Amino acid sequence: MDDKLQSAILKAVDDRFDAEVEFLSELTAHPSTRGNEQSAQDFMAGELAGRGYEVDRWQIDVADIRDMPGFSPVIGNYDDAVNVVGAHRARGSGRSLILNGHIDVVPEGPHDMWDTPPYQPRVDDGWMYGRGAGDMKAGLAANLFALDALKATGHQPAGDVFYQSVVEEECTGNGALACLQRGYRADAALIPEPFAESLVMAQVGVIWFQVHLKGLPVHVAYAGTGSNAIEAAVPLISALHALEHRWNAADRRPADYAHMDHALNLNIGKIEGGDWTSSVPAWCVFDVRMGVFPGQDMAKARAEIEEVLRQAARDNDFLRNNQPEIVYHGFQAEGYALSQDKSETAARAIGALEAAHGAVTGGTLDKLAITATTDARFFGLYADTPALVYGPRAEAIHGFNERVELESIRRTTQSIALFIADWCGLETL
Amino acid sequence: MDDKLQSAILKAVDDRFDAEVEFLSELTAHPSTRGNEQSAQDFMAGELAGRGYEVDRWQIDVADIRDMPGFSPVIGNYDDAVNVVGAHRARGSGRSLILNGHIDVVPEGPHDMWDTPPYQPRVDDGWMYGRGAGDMKAGLAANLFALDALKATGHQPAGDVFYQSVVEEECTGNGALACLQRGYRADAALIPEPFAESLVMAQVGVIWFQVHLKGLPVHVAYAGTGSNAIEAAVPLISALHALEHRWNAADRRPADYAHMDHALNLNIGKIEGGDWTSSVPAWCVFDVRMGVFPGQDMAKARAEIEEVLRQAARDNDFLRNNQPEIVYHGFQAEGYALSQDKSETAARAIGALEAAHGAVTGGTLDKLAITATTDARFFGLYADTPALVYGPRAEAIHGFNERVELESIRRTTQSIALFIADWCGLETL
Repeated sequence: MDDKLQSAILKAVDDRFDAEVEFLSELTAHPSTRGNEQSAQDFMAGELAGRGYEVDRWQIDVADIRDMPGFSPVIGNYDDAVNVVGAHRARGSGRSLILNGHIDVVPEGPHDMWDTPPYQPRVDDGWMYGRGAGDMKAGLAANLFALDALKATGHQPAGDVFYQSVVEEECTGNGALACLQRGYRADAALIPEPFAESLVMAQVGVIWFQVHLKGLPVHVAYAGTGSNAIEAAVPLISALHALEHRWNAADRRPADYAHMDHALNLNIGKIEGGDWTSSVPAWCVFDVRMGVFPGQDMAKARAEIEEVLRQAARDNDFLRNNQPEIVYHGFQAEGYALSQDKSETAARAIGALEAAHGAVTGGTLDKLAITATTDARFFGLYADTPALVYGPRAEAIHGFNERVELESIRRTTQSIALFIADWCGLETL
Repeated sequence: MDDKLQSAILKAVDDRFDAEVEFLSELTAHPSTRGNEQSAQDFMAGELAGRGYEVDRWQIDVADIRDMPGFSPVIGNYDDAVNVVGAHRARGSGRSLILNGHIDVVPEGPHDMWDTPPYQPRVDDGWMYGRGAGDMKAGLAANLFALDALKATGHQPAGDVFYQSVVEEECTGNGALACLQRGYRADAALIPEPFAESLVMAQVGVIWFQVHLKGLPVHVAYAGTGSNAIEAAVPLISALHALEHRWNAADRRPADYAHMDHALNLNIGKIEGGDWTSSVPAWCVFDVRMGVFPGQDMAKARAEIEEVLRQAARDNDFLRNNQPEIVYHGFQAEGYALSQDKSETAARAIGALEAAHGAVTGGTLDKLAITATTDARFFGLYADTPALVYGPRAEAIHGFNERVELESIRRTTQSIALFIADWCGLETL
């Protein structure tokens, strides 16, 4: 790319950056938690249509995807699970690209723990605060405004580009899976998840499961003869932590994670049990998230979890006769390592991103292994498409006062614009 | 009492026993959990009015009772908290009596753990099954049909009798307290709680409290830097059990409980925490019920609980900087021991019940100390009124398939009828 065009693209991002921040603020104001993504998707579809993209908007039908690899058990129903894709069809035959991002955000938690309301985004000292601002509405903004910048220089990508705004990333990934089922394919995918302008070379897999305990409830006056389903959870949680410890052992780590003592995190994310303070609780349910390494067999991982719970239950007076029920509910996500993709295409895509990042930042592209999952696995594992996860710097994602750095969004948008120009090539409007 | 009158009273209970069982079945069909007592109280008021009692029905006003000894912090509001009292005014000047029972029942829990629906009472092999059948709608039935039996012999009590159907027994006792505030006083009180035809000589006190934990939530990818509010509950629960163990030590037991290794039960009755499986939970709340001995100072007991929680929190990395919040919510019930009432009145009342029980069963009256609380404390501690807790045999109260034995209800009704005749004396209708 000649220097003049490159400068024009960078300047075009700068020129539109106030509008991009405004767009991000408006998008973040939509409280698009699971089941509530519709208004945010309406907004996205309108923005794409207004720019002349061919808009495909559809409700996910579980029947279409349930037999595909990578499918995860559905939580709730999909009455409101709508994906939006905006397609750019090129005249030329440059490489094609999927620009993917997820519209769903995780629950914001108790509002009194936020300094300001989570869905009233605000900018302070160069950061935008709000639930989802970083994870990952800034990425959706960067993808869109990168394309806008190219257009402002009188160009468009010379390969097809599919801009995807998907649901369900935070619990199953079935939104991205539905895009595959819908037929969207490209030579590479880019997902601007907020990993501080580093390129993600490996991501863990994630298993979600619920443990259901049932006890024999009695009046607390006779507590000794009953069995407390809430307290019965404690030894099971301990046993799961012991499993977590074993899975993180040095000799089990793939190369990408060799340096990390604790890449696989077990999280007790939710718990609920009991109906009355003076009744020994009859039931308790807790929700667990467990990480697995790339390459780790999912069926074997589940079997190990089940065996650990069964064994711990056998060691407990109450649980011995009341075996816990394990329900898989949400993520059954395999790990994925771009580092293992030895294809020419992957090398070319990584090279293009390195060049773009270098041109924008003057530095080299950091590469990292992450301890979370992303939708990259669908493209990489099930569609033979190298998936590059590269996005802005954010903090406290899934936490209170989540925030994303504006200058980082600007640089990310510029890098993505240069990457598209390089990867797809450009043609005049 | 002459034998002929006694036989007539016993027969009158027998004659009406089918109707009593029918009454109990209808009453049990009302799902009178906290806040839902209205239809059951409508039924009670109608039954009392139909029998010619002077019916007093009023909504509890917290402002009227909040400064009275024995008041407990209110759960929810009292928009639906209605007491019903039916008064019999005697011509003569016999001793007066309060016949008390509570209309509220504890939640039934998951219906799939019941053999048949909890609010569709059924009789099988001499037992009636249903939530509240034993605790304590059978007692309400016994009180009412005991009076009916006297009437059938052409008599009525020669002292005033106040038949009370109160709310809130299962969480605060504020229903019985409101009866005191309303001015109802008598020479003795009888409460047919289901303790298997034994007389309760001592009952423990009960403290309810909630422990609120707040954590620093982060994406589970960074679980090491966050703090799990659910798991932070575990060491606190352990510390509370250690306190429970200390409080039950032999040298702390009053005489009534000297033979019981574990009269004071700690129960973790409810728990809730977290919003999302892959977010480290920011909050967790658990509800605790703890017993105290009669005579144990409530303020000191609370201070000890608070100190134990504070100490446990100091020993925990996370909790040290996130001290748990303790909220008193429901029962602040002192223990009460009829055994400590050395008055002539108490001795006379116990003697009358012993005689009645002996006449019906041919046996002696067992006396016991119970590990639960009842509304008896209000009469005994705050109104100088000996309160006799004596009711039918029930099983699985607060549990699934709660049931009450019909023949035991019959005997209890007979004993209560004879007790009234003895205590109040009789006058012709």
